[in-house]
Amino acid sequence: MLIIGERINTSRKGLDEKVAERDEAFFRGLARTQFEAGAAYLDVNCGTRINTEIDDIAWLAQIVQDETGAPLSIDTPNPAAAESALKVHKGEARPIINSISGETERYNKMIGLLKEHGCGVIALVLDDEGMPANGAERFAKAQKLMDRLLGDGVPQGSIYLDPLVQPIASSIDPELSYGREVLWTLRKFKETWPELHCSAGVSNVSHGLPKRKILNQAFMVMCLEAGLDTAIIDPNDGYLMQLILAAEAIVGKDPMCANYIGAAREGKIEYWVKPEPAQ
Amino acid sequence: MLIIGERINTSRKGLDEKVAERDEAFFRGLARTQFEAGAAYLDVNCGTRINTEIDDIAWLAQIVQDETGAPLSIDTPNPAAAESALKVHKGEARPIINSISGETERYNKMIGLLKEHGCGVIALVLDDEGMPANGAERFAKAQKLMDRLLGDGVPQGSIYLDPLVQPIASSIDPELSYGREVLWTLRKFKETWPELHCSAGVSNVSHGLPKRKILNQAFMVMCLEAGLDTAIIDPNDGYLMQLILAAEAIVGKDPMCANYIGAAREGKIEYWVKPEPAQ
Repeated sequence: MLIIGERINTSRKGLDEKVAERDEAFFRGLARTQFEAGAAYLDVNCGTRINTEIDDIAWLAQIVQDETGAPLSIDTPNPAAAESALKVHKGEARPIINSISGETERYNKMIGLLKEHGCGVIALVLDDEGMPANGAERFAKAQKLMDRLLGDGVPQGSIYLDPLVQPIASSIDPELSYGREVLWTLRKFKETWPELHCSAGVSNVSHGLPKRKILNQAFMVMCLEAGLDTAIIDPNDGYLMQLILAAEAIVGKDPMCANYIGAAREGKIEYWVKPEPAQ
Repeated sequence: MLIIGERINTSRKGLDEKVAERDEAFFRGLARTQFEAGAAYLDVNCGTRINTEIDDIAWLAQIVQDETGAPLSIDTPNPAAAESALKVHKGEARPIINSISGETERYNKMIGLLKEHGCGVIALVLDDEGMPANGAERFAKAQKLMDRLLGDGVPQGSIYLDPLVQPIASSIDPELSYGREVLWTLRKFKETWPELHCSAGVSNVSHGLPKRKILNQAFMVMCLEAGLDTAIIDPNDGYLMQLILAAEAIVGKDPMCANYIGAAREGKIEYWVKPEPAQ
């Protein structure tokens, strides 16, 4: 599982102010903490700062990469902000643009950047007709978007297709489980495009419910089994990270259970793991 | 998920002696603890006590039912021991015989009891040719066993078909995930016999590996999503029980997430849950 650390996001409490104050030490800490916990990519999002996003995201990108060397998930719907972060991006690993979608304007603005920089891209199954209602609609929107991306020369292996996780609590049809629809969609994605990556904002599943971490953990395990290989999550939720290791061992993604056994030997698998306090 | 509490089993450390000493208070405690944690059935197994099993299992059955009123999972390959426990079984809920299999001798000895008492039965996909090697073999053995049980008049809804969980660490073929084979089999079972129950000894998955509880938790979540509706587990593993509630909410088995929200309101969903010490 490719882990994208989600914690550098100004929609989270107090972070907008920290960017305004240019609190470099704070963001270095947040970057390092996630990187050391196993995040391969770090997401940077300062979407709340509409007027200064272009400068802010470049500032964040530089600090995060200077501290960790990790490649970034550049999280913005604004192509100018994405370009600003791409310009300062360093290292051999390509950044991921988070995100493109089938919405005409967003697609047209982002596709040029993608082709120019050859980066990875998270592709949302969303288009001008709006959100998909179920698995079948997700897949139909995905087919259109994939045809377009592949037609524009973006290779399958550079695409991180996102089935759009909706909160289970928001379903008003008792016959329709938003959880099951996403799992069905993930299986269909992997079956149709074997080289594709699948990504998801797993924690959306629990929006509006109490004790969200437990729901996120259970859903992550199911998504991994269904084909998810990339996840934007809090890598400092130690229990979640352990469950990912366990799930990989169970479904044959960890040959001889070597990673799991190694993590246990190093004392990294514990029955009671306190997540880092929210920042 | 129908939970069968697994802890009254003389193969567990110290329990054989407790039966020999007729330590009633101990077993009352073990029964109550599991019942209060959410076990609907309680498994009783004194298979280590070969010479006295017939008396011992009846003694255990009486104490456990007197303390909790819960129906029992009568866990023995010995029809005489099963009959001895059935004779003292009380209450309206039918007991479950744990277990029958496709092995000729075992089948022939147990089927009479099943028909006479009209109880539920855990049916293992095991026959005279031995253990199944993969999902396809599991399903082939299941078809033969189901044909026989249904032919003998046992209704689908009384059968708890068990796909036989094998330890992932014991697979020597890197292409064959014992976890995935079981998940495939569970889906096939539910597809083929919609009224059937599926049961499994989930914790077998982690045999021989360190930090087993985490693996058992991840596998339980996957099995539930694949169709498992009955599980023989330790209901005092609070984290496992929470993950089951969360998983049910995600896959639409908990309408409006009512159970999950209720459990959270009652303070039963906690991020750090210490399991009861092993007994």
